[in-house]
Amino acid sequence: MTKKITIAIDAMGGENAPDKTIEGVGLFINKFNNKKDYTLNLFGDEKKIKEKLEKYKINNNNIIITHTDSVVSDKETPITAVKNSKNTSMWNCIKSQLDGDSDISLSAGNTGVLLVISRMILKMMDDVSKPALAGLWPNKLGTNIVLDLGANIECTEQNLIDFAELGSALYKSLFPEDKANVSLLNVGSEEIKGTELLKNTSKKLAELSNENNFIFKGYIEGNEIMSGKSNVIVTDGFTGNIALKTAEGTAKFITDNLKKSLKENLFSKISIIFSYFSLKKFQKKLDPRKYNGAIFLGLNGPVVKSHGGIDSLGFYHSIDLCYKIVKGNLMAQIKNNLSHLKNGKG
Amino acid sequence: MTKKITIAIDAMGGENAPDKTIEGVGLFINKFNNKKDYTLNLFGDEKKIKEKLEKYKINNNNIIITHTDSVVSDKETPITAVKNSKNTSMWNCIKSQLDGDSDISLSAGNTGVLLVISRMILKMMDDVSKPALAGLWPNKLGTNIVLDLGANIECTEQNLIDFAELGSALYKSLFPEDKANVSLLNVGSEEIKGTELLKNTSKKLAELSNENNFIFKGYIEGNEIMSGKSNVIVTDGFTGNIALKTAEGTAKFITDNLKKSLKENLFSKISIIFSYFSLKKFQKKLDPRKYNGAIFLGLNGPVVKSHGGIDSLGFYHSIDLCYKIVKGNLMAQIKNNLSHLKNGKG
Repeated sequence: MTKKITIAIDAMGGENAPDKTIEGVGLFINKFNNKKDYTLNLFGDEKKIKEKLEKYKINNNNIIITHTDSVVSDKETPITAVKNSKNTSMWNCIKSQLDGDSDISLSAGNTGVLLVISRMILKMMDDVSKPALAGLWPNKLGTNIVLDLGANIECTEQNLIDFAELGSALYKSLFPEDKANVSLLNVGSEEIKGTELLKNTSKKLAELSNENNFIFKGYIEGNEIMSGKSNVIVTDGFTGNIALKTAEGTAKFITDNLKKSLKENLFSKISIIFSYFSLKKFQKKLDPRKYNGAIFLGLNGPVVKSHGGIDSLGFYHSIDLCYKIVKGNLMAQIKNNLSHLKNGKG
Repeated sequence: MTKKITIAIDAMGGENAPDKTIEGVGLFINKFNNKKDYTLNLFGDEKKIKEKLEKYKINNNNIIITHTDSVVSDKETPITAVKNSKNTSMWNCIKSQLDGDSDISLSAGNTGVLLVISRMILKMMDDVSKPALAGLWPNKLGTNIVLDLGANIECTEQNLIDFAELGSALYKSLFPEDKANVSLLNVGSEEIKGTELLKNTSKKLAELSNENNFIFKGYIEGNEIMSGKSNVIVTDGFTGNIALKTAEGTAKFITDNLKKSLKENLFSKISIIFSYFSLKKFQKKLDPRKYNGAIFLGLNGPVVKSHGGIDSLGFYHSIDLCYKIVKGNLMAQIKNNLSHLKNGKG
């Protein structure tokens, strides 16, 4: 028998916890009702968790509950959290990874605190200069990865190179059939464009490019993030965060306007009846809940951050993401990539 | 009689010139057929321009043509252009501003060359540390301005403060009834977020904030660029370019998917008949051609860059933008804002 995939879940993190987190657990268990290759380790108020498990009639064969009294508050800052977050559901969730009881952690709680205590408990991997936050984006051909999304506001050449290795490993663990194509986000695709830092990083990535780890495709511009040209897009945390949020804002602006237009008169309302299934499919394809879950990479174990205000379907997608990451052997892929980087450096 | 608004147009710049540029001139003239308060100074091959004026049956009462033999090639770089671009249609277009024959210049030609020769001919304004490229974005309440979109890859505190002054002046010249609300693009809205540069700039902008020049609203995140919370959004050229292109790419991705969904089966095709006018209105509201034209600010005269591949309607919108900028007294607004900045500095 192969080892089970163990996912540690902070049942109390996020605006709608534990109701939506547990309902999300239920969706995951129902989808995988034939599988027995995983365990969900839930951390939080045992009484409340059990109530919700009952409410949603969830089969608890694959669930282990570990009671914790306290929860990280939304008001906690990364600085105060170090003192105040010990033995919270989030802390114990990540701690279970250190103890070898879980392969990955998931929380929808306070992002800043999650990053700080993950780093404190799990520690950084040898040979990684800085950890990064990676996100999944839809593109024309499927899904790609963008990192860093905000863990590091300022980055060095070495940080960006590490992100390329970490991101490629993540991509290969999620899409084992596919190759990782890395691009560097820049303001133009020509070699002379961008900062000195980007030019130097680009040269180094071109040297490291190979079929086994990643293929470097050069620069990519903002309008091509979703073109499918590349599946691992590397940038510093400031730029990545601005790009992510600008894309979110643009998507919201367009879909709000579309909804308004389709409801403005009788004819357009009738049209919704005829296009109902097509519009549903359109909506489903671009549903941001499918891409819920940013992955914190570069520590001695992966940590996934779900959006704080997410509903049960979005939280389900985060659990599913955790499952795929472990099944795809992310940590082994990272170690393999980093050794290549080390050899490439020497 | 008040002085006429004079717009210098590079008739030969852009992929579809002079056909689409002249057709755009025709659209502008038809719209303003009762007005006599402007002159369009067209620069380029006189024979070709006249052919197109005839083709589109354009009334040429408000047109002056200045013949130029050569055109800036798309292959020209900012470095080679200095030597090779003299007496091209683009060069003579901007030169007419220096000579006092035009109030503003418009070209759809090579961007890098346009920025370099504009700066060379018109020179920077006193008290402006670096010129910036500003763009118009749709938002929930109307239109806002984002700058810099790529003229300056790296910026200092003083550059960003200048951009706030230049952008507010542009906003007030385009929307004279409205106040300019400035925000600084950042990765969070809390004071502790972002780089030291942004923190220092934010403090300075808060000190300079006043009803007459601009009101500083603090930080803004990428997802709020189109929320209407602010109408002048300031950032460095690297971040601005990434945000602009990411928004373009996201919009394209969503609308492509929507079109595909609405054409996938008979029912959805029927729905288009019913929603035709609503979808047209939706499309019209978000039509990127309405926002065609980036404004180069900080020189002794404004220069507008139209998208290179634009059609006649998009080029018309750029001419209209030039008209509004001059009518709204942009240069006087900038001088007024900069004197405030100077006093604020001292």
